[in-house]
Amino acid sequence: MYKAGIIGATGYTGEELLRILARHEKVHVEFATSEKENGESLQKVFPHLPHYKNMSFCSAEKAAEINVDLVFLCLPAGESVKWAKIFSGKKTKVVDLGADFRFSDPKVYQQWYNMPHADPLILQKAVYGLPEWHRDEIRNADIVGNPGCYPTSVLLAVIPFLRAGLLDGSPIIVDAKSGVSGAGKSPSKTAHYVEANESIGPYKVGRVHRHVGEMEKELNLHAGADQQVIFSPHLTPMTRGILSSIYFRLSQKTDKKELLEILNRAYADEPFVHVLKDRLPATKMCLQTNYCFLGLETVAGTDNVVLFSAIDNLGKGASTQAVQNMNLMLGLPETMGLDA
Amino acid sequence: MYKAGIIGATGYTGEELLRILARHEKVHVEFATSEKENGESLQKVFPHLPHYKNMSFCSAEKAAEINVDLVFLCLPAGESVKWAKIFSGKKTKVVDLGADFRFSDPKVYQQWYNMPHADPLILQKAVYGLPEWHRDEIRNADIVGNPGCYPTSVLLAVIPFLRAGLLDGSPIIVDAKSGVSGAGKSPSKTAHYVEANESIGPYKVGRVHRHVGEMEKELNLHAGADQQVIFSPHLTPMTRGILSSIYFRLSQKTDKKELLEILNRAYADEPFVHVLKDRLPATKMCLQTNYCFLGLETVAGTDNVVLFSAIDNLGKGASTQAVQNMNLMLGLPETMGLDA
Amino acid sequence: MYKAGIIGATGYTGEELLRILARHEKVHVEFATSEKENGESLQKVFPHLPHYKNMSFCSAEKAAEINVDLVFLCLPAGESVKWAKIFSGKKTKVVDLGADFRFSDPKVYQQWYNMPHADPLILQKAVYGLPEWHRDEIRNADIVGNPGCYPTSVLLAVIPFLRAGLLDGSPIIVDAKSGVSGAGKSPSKTAHYVEANESIGPYKVGRVHRHVGEMEKELNLHAGADQQVIFSPHLTPMTRGILSSIYFRLSQKTDKKELLEILNRAYADEPFVHVLKDRLPATKMCLQTNYCFLGLETVAGTDNVVLFSAIDNLGKGASTQAVQNMNLMLGLPETMGLDA
Amino acid sequence: MYKAGIIGATGYTGEELLRILARHEKVHVEFATSEKENGESLQKVFPHLPHYKNMSFCSAEKAAEINVDLVFLCLPAGESVKWAKIFSGKKTKVVDLGADFRFSDPKVYQQWYNMPHADPLILQKAVYGLPEWHRDEIRNADIVGNPGCYPTSVLLAVIPFLRAGLLDGSPIIVDAKSGVSGAGKSPSKTAHYVEANESIGPYKVGRVHRHVGEMEKELNLHAGADQQVIFSPHLTPMTRGILSSIYFRLSQKTDKKELLEILNRAYADEPFVHVLKDRLPATKMCLQTNYCFLGLETVAGTDNVVLFSAIDNLGKGASTQAVQNMNLMLGLPETMGLDA
Repeated sequence: MYKAGIIGATGYTGEELLRILARHEKVHVEFATSEKENGESLQKVFPHLPHYKNMSFCSAEKAAEINVDLVFLCLPAGESVKWAKIFSGKKTKVVDLGADFRFSDPKVYQQWYNMPHADPLILQKAVYGLPEWHRDEIRNADIVGNPGCYPTSVLLAVIPFLRAGLLDGSPIIVDAKSGVSGAGKSPSKTAHYVEANESIGPYKVGRVHRHVGEMEKELNLHAGADQQVIFSPHLTPMTRGILSSIYFRLSQKTDKKELLEILNRAYADEPFVHVLKDRLPATKMCLQTNYCFLGLETVAGTDNVVLFSAIDNLGKGASTQAVQNMNLMLGLPETMGLDA
Repeated sequence: MYKAGIIGATGYTGEELLRILARHEKVHVEFATSEKENGESLQKVFPHLPHYKNMSFCSAEKAAEINVDLVFLCLPAGESVKWAKIFSGKKTKVVDLGADFRFSDPKVYQQWYNMPHADPLILQKAVYGLPEWHRDEIRNADIVGNPGCYPTSVLLAVIPFLRAGLLDGSPIIVDAKSGVSGAGKSPSKTAHYVEANESIGPYKVGRVHRHVGEMEKELNLHAGADQQVIFSPHLTPMTRGILSSIYFRLSQKTDKKELLEILNRAYADEPFVHVLKDRLPATKMCLQTNYCFLGLETVAGTDNVVLFSAIDNLGKGASTQAVQNMNLMLGLPETMGLDA
Repeated sequence: MYKAGIIGATGYTGEELLRILARHEKVHVEFATSEKENGESLQKVFPHLPHYKNMSFCSAEKAAEINVDLVFLCLPAGESVKWAKIFSGKKTKVVDLGADFRFSDPKVYQQWYNMPHADPLILQKAVYGLPEWHRDEIRNADIVGNPGCYPTSVLLAVIPFLRAGLLDGSPIIVDAKSGVSGAGKSPSKTAHYVEANESIGPYKVGRVHRHVGEMEKELNLHAGADQQVIFSPHLTPMTRGILSSIYFRLSQKTDKKELLEILNRAYADEPFVHVLKDRLPATKMCLQTNYCFLGLETVAGTDNVVLFSAIDNLGKGASTQAVQNMNLMLGLPETMGLDA
Repeated sequence: MYKAGIIGATGYTGEELLRILARHEKVHVEFATSEKENGESLQKVFPHLPHYKNMSFCSAEKAAEINVDLVFLCLPAGESVKWAKIFSGKKTKVVDLGADFRFSDPKVYQQWYNMPHADPLILQKAVYGLPEWHRDEIRNADIVGNPGCYPTSVLLAVIPFLRAGLLDGSPIIVDAKSGVSGAGKSPSKTAHYVEANESIGPYKVGRVHRHVGEMEKELNLHAGADQQVIFSPHLTPMTRGILSSIYFRLSQKTDKKELLEILNRAYADEPFVHVLKDRLPATKMCLQTNYCFLGLETVAGTDNVVLFSAIDNLGKGASTQAVQNMNLMLGLPETMGLDA
């Protein structure tokens, strides 16, 4: 059995990690930290997770003294670096579910997160944790920056076409719909049931949301050129799930069959990415899984393609993808504990 | 045109009053107060209420200098008395949507609200605002204590049977289901979309919730004896609505037809209380109205009756009932502005 | 009092008309037809509409013998023409909530609805019922084709920019999100609670949905040129509401302030169209109203505009707009009975 | 590897069995039948279950020729007996998720299901599949009648108190709230999103619902006397979950601590039944699990107890409980594949 720990275990991504790891055959959760619930039993905070009934939350400070094989950091941007240094200094592998290790260039990080990166040098040890496109680097990484939820859904859909040279270079439009768990666990007006229920609306529209930086950075890598993203996230009345509806223009005439074939070739051997040919994705398909469902349509009389990508924002968009990365980093079968 | 004002207009009951009064033919809203939004335009806070686009929130202090015919108080328990004194001192009629004027006996108030009543003498000027059973007193009252949402649903259902002597004296069981707006507008863990959505659960079960005191007080009045209420409120994944499922035992054999007849007689002339004979109520029926729908079943082989009462917790359970009371107090047709 | 009738009154648009007209000061509902519920009392089918407790559904055949001032047709495409002829032949004004009178060119109708129009000549008597852009024609029309829900939301948003010559001529992208009531009242897999709840997904994507024809037809009129629409409707887990997120490219540099000014100028005197400057629309704002809320963002580093339009699909997208048209056709104040 | 088959695999319980068994270490699904989808690939019908991408639905007739160790029957009442005979005749173990094997007395079955039992003799080979109270019989049974969803929630809560002699003999009141998946997969008015969303309402109230017979039958067994159940099921706006709020009167004074102790003793070694002491259950706690959460309150000034039981209606109320029974019948660890 490998040992894992979770720093920041009371938020939605930490809770989801606890749920998933409870049935992992080769990994045992050694600690779960919470500064607010420090000393409290997990049973009290998470009665629905009886597997942990003999465990209590400890502080991150205390957890740093415990030896584990891998640690998950579920912390806000800016707070992960400190703990990543401590744990990776002890040869503990690190998967950061926050934003601090998603950018190799600290200047780009600073541009989107409005603060200097806390330790630019440590970024050299970090890898962007999208296994479908960085699998080998992840296997050997000390630190993995687990991708954001929106970028995961968009990158899996767009990269194959970008690599095939099929985008015409104009901005991609991403109209994304996210469940309310994406807004985090802290009570807020936005996440109040009465405000969110029976309503859909956009927020941070344009090239404003931090995930635009993450998407563009990774797209540029595959495009070998600047690829702009116009991004409209929408808060949608459901607990979980992201659907990204993506609009781009073709650089050359290509029909639906050929486009699907490009996706099929890219993901034929991928256990978690599924290409639909007879229907379009809906978020319900991937509820509580690590799956990504892709589908598309061409538009008669135009050179436009509409691409759809559905994931669970707490699954492939966060915690199950983190476990997929963990499996790779520990040399375990990639799908272990992940139902595929 | 009569003039009305709203003290505490940014909560759900205040917002709903603004919405309803916008189409009232004989009443104009002169002021809406908010300490937090003091000076802010209503258009900014409530863009969906364009009728008030030229109005700004003011402080309660400021509002107290404005002459109106009637003022609505939408304040937490303990905070209404001060403003009720000020306004009723100026001959302004008062409808309090909080709890401070629902009890004529200050000792009972203190027992359930854990604080002494701020001005026991003023209670003599106040009337319990359930029009179907206190219409004449309301017409002449200076101050009306608008009933709580749960009590409204329960009292309308039970009083006719209590007055007919059909209850056997054992405790009534009220299993109530409320939409999340009942939890108020302040962000909280309970009202977080992710916590409330796709889940139903009870809270404050037994004879614990403050509304038990209000129900028992009023039932005792009609029973001429002590009538206990066992009360289980449940938070239900919907924005609005209360369904009370009420269980009681008959003091004498009575069939369904006779029981329905008792309700029909009680409410034949009531514009807002509707007795269903072929089906049972659901909360959807009264969404955004002042209606109460009642229905019932007897239980084969037992002397039990199951009674159902559905209202909108922000409608008949709060703001439309407050407007019904206002209409009575101002001598207007009782249904004016209320769709009946 | 004017007299109105409803042909096809048991679907969602018919039910909503009944609800709205119940509080209209100058119009009385004389009949409501249903072939399936023929002879049944409205009270039984719609217990939440007690205003009609003494009325029963009749057949359309029977209704055709009753004299009214205006009739609403709530029928599937292809079924309205017959009744429009009968009623307009008797000088009864007609508002058709279906598609049969939305196209002046029967060939375009046939192209999108896959059937020949039942009476091309009658189209000369019909006007497209978007009051903000066809008010004077509607006032004098015998027959009004009430716009579709999606087109209403899109046209109100786009027409001002099209008329200002600000679109570059490339296809407009409309990513629309609709509540499930848009799928109609007949039980179906799509509308099953378990399928629709907690999931968002697209359908009929590209230039496939019938509303594309309606949008393009009307946009071309204002553009004086061909304007293509790429349309992705999404079924959204909520009962009511449409949000259209619209992407277009500017023909000339224009900043957000200027763009808002164009909307403001277009709708300054419109009682039902509201332009938001500090926030973006959400469907909740227009629940059960005839309002349309508009908002927009420009996108840094690009020539793209993202435009948002929110309506209630059963309100401004169907039944309240039909009442707005009725008011115009009967010479009544346009906002009567519509809360504005 | 053991082999299992599913007769009737396209309904919600069949689909859920497919999902659960996909990650069972020792059981492989050999066939899944559907008369309607006969010949269709599972991938097309259930794209979210890629584990079965090489499998197609077959007819039950065809499946009867395939040898498996255990078969699940997911059929309406009256349709299981035929297949149970065929499979048990071949020494295949049978778990029936319908009602045909829940009653040992065919007369009681007939009374509640309004039809004679198709083969009264076969009932001798069947065991009621509530493992917590019939574990040893299940281990040796040829046929298991998997309990209904409501009865599972009620029996687990009430049996310990019944066996302790703490009920006073008067009827138990069960006010139950169920998610819409309990209404089945066929489209219907009841299950239409627009009807079910944002509304809660009762149906089949009293001693009318078929599950009353199942509950009373099993309670009588443990009580050694007649125990009536007054049952009010409510359709609740959520996809999954049942909360039963149960009211009974004590035969002798017992405080909350003692009552919790009785539950704790009954379920101390049970992996799936969890007794809450500091809070009350909500359905969210058991989403997609085989858990049952129990909690209770006494009521000051009365001899009443309010007991709460939460399960997932498709989990412990159907498919995960069926897998728990399968594990027992095949001699596998009871919790295998069930996350406990």
